[in-house]
Amino acid sequence: MTYHFSKTVDLPFEQAIEASIQALQRHGFGVLTEIDVKATLKKKLDVDFRPYRILGACNPTMAHQALQAEDKIGTMLPCNVIVQQREDGTVEVSAVDPIASMQAIDNPKLAGIAGQVRDMLRQVVEEIGRARQAA
Amino acid sequence: MTYHFSKTVDLPFEQAIEASIQALQRHGFGVLTEIDVKATLKKKLDVDFRPYRILGACNPTMAHQALQAEDKIGTMLPCNVIVQQREDGTVEVSAVDPIASMQAIDNPKLAGIAGQVRDMLRQVVEEIGRARQAA
Repeated sequence: MTYHFSKTVDLPFEQAIEASIQALQRHGFGVLTEIDVKATLKKKLDVDFRPYRILGACNPTMAHQALQAEDKIGTMLPCNVIVQQREDGTVEVSAVDPIASMQAIDNPKLAGIAGQVRDMLRQVVEEIGRARQAA
Repeated sequence: MTYHFSKTVDLPFEQAIEASIQALQRHGFGVLTEIDVKATLKKKLDVDFRPYRILGACNPTMAHQALQAEDKIGTMLPCNVIVQQREDGTVEVSAVDPIASMQAIDNPKLAGIAGQVRDMLRQVVEEIGRARQAA
Protein backbone atom coordinates (compact mmCIF):
# COMPACT_ATOMS: atom_id res chain seq x y z
CA MET A 1 0.00 0.00 0.00
CA THR A 2 1.35 3.45 -0.82
CA TYR A 3 1.23 5.82 2.11
CA HIS A 4 1.72 9.13 0.30
CA PHE A 5 0.80 11.17 -2.76
CA SER A 6 3.85 12.58 -4.49
CA LYS A 7 4.67 14.80 -7.44
CA THR A 8 7.87 16.17 -8.88
CA VAL A 9 7.48 19.94 -9.16
CA ASP A 10 9.00 22.34 -11.64
CA LEU A 11 9.96 24.88 -8.97
CA PRO A 12 13.03 25.62 -6.86
CA PHE A 13 12.87 24.29 -3.29
CA GLU A 14 11.75 27.45 -1.47
CA GLN A 15 9.15 28.29 -4.12
CA ALA A 16 7.80 24.73 -3.88
CA ILE A 17 7.27 25.30 -0.16
CA GLU A 18 5.40 28.54 -0.89
CA ALA A 19 3.28 26.83 -3.55
CA SER A 20 2.51 24.01 -1.10
CA ILE A 21 1.38 26.40 1.62
CA GLN A 22 -0.85 28.25 -0.86
CA ALA A 23 -2.40 25.07 -2.27
CA LEU A 24 -3.08 23.83 1.26
CA GLN A 25 -4.76 27.12 2.13
CA ARG A 26 -7.04 26.87 -0.89
CA HIS A 27 -8.30 23.57 0.53
CA GLY A 28 -8.79 24.89 4.06
CA PHE A 29 -5.54 23.67 5.58
CA GLY A 30 -3.39 25.91 7.73
CA VAL A 31 0.26 25.06 8.27
CA LEU A 32 0.60 24.79 12.06
CA THR A 33 4.15 23.47 12.23
CA GLU A 34 7.24 23.55 10.05
CA ILE A 35 10.39 21.48 10.54
CA ASP A 36 13.56 22.26 8.62
CA VAL A 37 15.02 18.74 8.62
CA LYS A 38 18.31 19.79 7.02
CA ALA A 39 18.90 22.49 9.66
CA THR A 40 17.78 20.25 12.52
CA LEU A 41 20.11 17.39 11.54
CA LYS A 42 22.99 19.84 11.09
CA LYS A 43 22.38 21.37 14.50
CA LYS A 44 21.74 18.17 16.45
CA LEU A 45 24.05 15.66 14.71
CA ASP A 46 26.34 17.86 12.62
CA VAL A 47 25.44 15.85 9.51
CA ASP A 48 24.74 17.25 6.07
CA PHE A 49 21.36 16.43 4.62
CA ARG A 50 19.60 17.62 1.49
CA PRO A 51 16.91 20.35 1.68
CA TYR A 52 13.89 18.70 3.33
CA ARG A 53 10.98 20.47 5.00
CA ILE A 54 8.03 19.00 6.89
CA LEU A 55 4.85 21.10 6.91
CA GLY A 56 2.23 20.10 9.48
CA ALA A 57 -1.11 20.84 7.79
CA CYS A 58 -4.41 21.00 9.59
CA ASN A 59 -7.93 21.57 8.34
CA PRO A 60 -9.59 22.68 11.58
CA THR A 61 -13.08 21.46 10.67
CA MET A 62 -11.82 17.98 9.76
CA ALA A 63 -9.50 17.84 12.77
CA HIS A 64 -12.35 18.73 15.10
CA GLN A 65 -14.50 15.96 13.63
CA ALA A 66 -11.62 13.48 13.89
CA LEU A 67 -10.96 14.39 17.54
CA GLN A 68 -14.62 13.91 18.40
CA ALA A 69 -14.65 10.51 16.69
CA GLU A 70 -11.36 9.28 18.16
CA ASP A 71 -9.91 10.99 21.22
CA LYS A 72 -6.30 9.88 20.66
CA ILE A 73 -6.14 10.78 16.97
CA GLY A 74 -3.90 13.70 17.94
CA THR A 75 -1.09 11.13 17.97
CA MET A 76 -1.43 11.24 14.16
CA LEU A 77 -2.18 14.92 13.59
CA PRO A 78 -1.43 17.18 11.81
CA CYS A 79 -1.23 15.67 8.30
CA ASN A 80 2.21 16.27 6.87
CA VAL A 81 3.21 17.62 3.50
CA ILE A 82 6.92 17.30 2.81
CA VAL A 83 9.06 19.14 0.28
CA GLN A 84 12.44 17.65 -0.52
CA GLN A 85 15.21 18.29 -2.99
CA ARG A 86 16.60 15.07 -4.36
CA GLU A 87 20.25 14.36 -5.05
CA ASP A 88 19.74 15.22 -8.75
CA GLY A 89 18.38 18.67 -7.82
CA THR A 90 14.74 17.98 -8.63
CA VAL A 91 12.13 18.94 -6.05
CA GLU A 92 9.39 16.60 -4.93
CA VAL A 93 6.29 17.23 -2.83
CA SER A 94 4.50 14.47 -0.92
CA ALA A 95 1.46 14.38 1.32
CA VAL A 96 0.67 11.62 3.77
CA ASP A 97 -2.29 9.41 2.91
CA PRO A 98 -4.24 9.44 6.19
CA ILE A 99 -6.04 6.23 5.27
CA ALA A 100 -2.64 4.49 5.24
CA SER A 101 -1.29 6.05 8.43
CA MET A 102 -4.56 5.48 10.29
CA GLN A 103 -5.25 1.94 9.06
CA ALA A 104 -4.48 0.44 12.49
CA ILE A 105 -7.43 2.36 13.95
CA ASP A 106 -10.65 0.38 13.88
CA ASN A 107 -13.18 3.21 13.78
CA PRO A 108 -15.54 3.51 10.78
CA LYS A 109 -16.46 7.11 11.65
CA LEU A 110 -12.79 8.12 11.58
CA ALA A 111 -12.24 6.22 8.34
CA GLY A 112 -14.91 8.36 6.68
CA ILE A 113 -13.21 11.55 7.80
CA ALA A 114 -9.76 10.27 6.82
CA GLY A 115 -11.13 9.41 3.39
CA GLN A 116 -12.32 12.97 2.88
CA VAL A 117 -8.96 14.39 4.00
CA ARG A 118 -7.19 11.93 1.69
CA ASP A 119 -9.14 13.30 -1.29
CA MET A 120 -8.32 16.87 -0.30
CA LEU A 121 -4.59 16.16 0.12
CA ARG A 122 -4.47 14.29 -3.19
CA GLN A 123 -5.93 17.36 -4.90
CA VAL A 124 -3.44 19.60 -3.09
CA VAL A 125 -0.51 17.57 -4.42
CA GLU A 126 -1.98 17.54 -7.93
CA GLU A 127 -2.24 21.35 -7.83
CA ILE A 128 1.30 21.78 -6.53
CA GLY A 129 2.50 19.48 -9.31
CA ARG A 130 0.95 21.87 -11.86
CA ALA A 131 2.53 25.00 -10.33
CA ARG A 132 5.07 26.70 -12.58
CA GLN A 133 7.60 29.46 -12.03
CA ALA A 134 6.41 32.91 -12.92
CA ALA A 135 7.91 33.93 -16.28
CA MET B 1 -4.28 -3.17 16.74
CA THR B 2 -3.67 -0.40 19.26
CA TYR B 3 -1.87 2.56 17.79
CA HIS B 4 -0.77 4.32 20.97
CA PHE B 5 0.67 3.86 24.45
CA SER B 6 -1.37 5.69 27.06
CA LYS B 7 -1.30 6.33 30.79
CA THR B 8 -3.42 8.37 33.14
CA VAL B 9 -1.12 10.68 35.07
CA ASP B 10 -1.45 12.06 38.57
CA LEU B 11 -0.50 15.59 37.53
CA PRO B 12 -2.35 18.75 36.48
CA PHE B 13 -2.42 19.36 32.73
CA GLU B 14 0.47 21.84 32.41
CA GLN B 15 2.70 19.80 34.74
CA ALA B 16 1.95 16.69 32.70
CA ILE B 17 3.24 18.52 29.63
CA GLU B 18 6.43 19.47 31.48
CA ALA B 19 6.89 15.89 32.72
CA SER B 20 6.38 14.61 29.17
CA ILE B 21 8.99 16.96 27.72
CA GLN B 22 11.48 15.93 30.41
CA ALA B 23 10.86 12.20 29.96
CA LEU B 24 11.26 12.59 26.20
CA GLN B 25 14.55 14.41 26.71
CA ARG B 26 15.88 11.60 28.92
CA HIS B 27 15.35 9.26 25.97
CA GLY B 28 16.99 11.56 23.42
CA PHE B 29 13.85 13.15 21.98
CA GLY B 30 13.58 16.87 21.45
CA VAL B 31 10.16 18.48 21.12
CA LEU B 32 10.27 20.22 17.73
CA THR B 33 6.65 21.27 17.49
CA GLU B 34 3.80 21.96 19.88
CA ILE B 35 0.15 22.42 18.95
CA ASP B 36 -2.34 23.79 21.44
CA VAL B 37 -5.45 22.09 20.04
CA LYS B 38 -7.87 23.87 22.40
CA ALA B 39 -6.52 27.30 21.42
CA THR B 40 -6.37 26.43 17.72
CA LEU B 41 -9.98 25.22 17.60
CA LYS B 42 -11.13 28.29 19.53
CA LYS B 43 -9.31 30.61 17.16
CA LYS B 44 -10.22 28.91 13.89
CA LEU B 45 -13.72 27.58 14.59
CA ASP B 46 -14.76 29.39 17.78
CA VAL B 47 -15.53 26.05 19.43
CA ASP B 48 -14.70 25.08 23.01
CA PHE B 49 -12.55 22.00 23.41
CA ARG B 50 -10.89 20.47 26.44
CA PRO B 51 -7.16 21.04 27.14
CA TYR B 52 -5.32 19.01 24.49
CA ARG B 53 -1.68 19.47 23.43
CA ILE B 54 0.25 17.73 20.66
CA LEU B 55 4.03 17.51 21.15
CA GLY B 56 6.05 16.58 18.06
CA ALA B 57 8.97 14.54 19.40
CA CYS B 58 12.06 13.72 17.41
CA ASN B 59 15.10 11.65 18.26
CA PRO B 60 17.54 13.05 15.70
CA THR B 61 19.65 9.88 15.42
CA MET B 62 16.62 7.67 14.81
CA ALA B 63 15.04 10.23 12.45
CA HIS B 64 18.24 10.39 10.40
CA GLN B 65 18.32 6.61 10.10
CA ALA B 66 14.64 6.51 9.14
CA LEU B 67 15.11 9.20 6.47
CA GLN B 68 18.01 7.29 4.96
CA ALA B 69 15.96 4.07 4.89
CA GLU B 70 12.77 5.66 3.50
CA ASP B 71 12.95 9.05 1.83
CA LYS B 72 9.27 9.95 2.33
CA ILE B 73 9.08 8.96 5.99
CA GLY B 74 8.94 12.68 6.80
CA THR B 75 5.21 12.39 6.01
CA MET B 76 4.99 10.52 9.35
CA LEU B 77 7.51 12.46 11.44
CA PRO B 78 7.85 13.63 14.14
CA CYS B 79 6.36 11.06 16.55
CA ASN B 80 3.60 12.65 18.57
CA VAL B 81 3.03 12.59 22.28
CA ILE B 82 -0.33 14.04 23.29
CA VAL B 83 -1.49 15.31 26.66
CA GLN B 84 -5.22 15.71 27.18
CA GLN B 85 -7.53 16.51 30.03
CA ARG B 86 -10.61 14.33 29.95
CA GLU B 87 -14.14 15.49 30.77
CA ASP B 88 -13.77 14.12 34.32
CA GLY B 89 -10.67 16.25 34.89
CA THR B 90 -8.11 13.42 34.76
CA VAL B 91 -5.07 13.90 32.57
CA GLU B 92 -3.88 11.29 30.10
CA VAL B 93 -0.67 11.05 28.12
CA SER B 94 -0.38 9.03 24.90
CA ALA B 95 2.44 8.37 22.45
CA VAL B 96 1.95 7.13 18.93
CA ASP B 97 3.11 3.57 18.23
CA PRO B 98 5.22 4.07 15.09
CA ILE B 99 4.83 0.41 14.15
CA ALA B 100 1.09 1.01 13.87
CA SER B 101 1.26 4.30 11.99
CA MET B 102 3.95 2.99 9.62
CA GLN B 103 2.45 -0.44 8.98
CA ALA B 104 1.49 0.48 5.40
CA ILE B 105 5.18 0.94 4.56
CA ASP B 106 6.79 -2.21 3.23
CA ASN B 107 10.40 -1.62 4.26
CA PRO B 108 12.09 -4.06 6.69
CA LYS B 109 14.90 -1.62 7.45
CA LEU B 110 12.40 1.04 8.50
CA ALA B 111 10.44 -1.51 10.54
CA GLY B 112 13.56 -2.20 12.61
CA ILE B 113 14.03 1.49 13.33
CA ALA B 114 10.32 1.98 14.11
CA GLY B 115 10.50 -0.95 16.52
CA GLN B 116 13.35 0.70 18.44
CA VAL B 117 11.47 4.01 18.59
CA ARG B 118 8.34 2.17 19.74
CA ASP B 119 10.27 0.71 22.69
CA MET B 120 11.65 4.14 23.59
CA LEU B 121 8.23 5.82 23.45
CA ARG B 122 6.66 3.05 25.50
CA GLN B 123 9.26 3.64 28.20
CA VAL B 124 8.67 7.40 28.01
CA VAL B 125 4.94 6.92 28.66
CA GLU B 126 5.65 4.48 31.51
CA GLU B 127 7.91 7.08 33.14
CA ILE B 128 5.39 9.89 32.73
CA GLY B 129 2.76 7.62 34.29
CA ARG B 130 4.96 7.29 37.37
CA ALA B 131 5.56 11.04 37.71
CA ARG B 132 4.01 12.60 40.81
CA GLN B 133 3.47 16.15 41.97
CA ALA B 134 6.22 17.55 44.14
CA ALA B 135 5.03 17.52 47.76
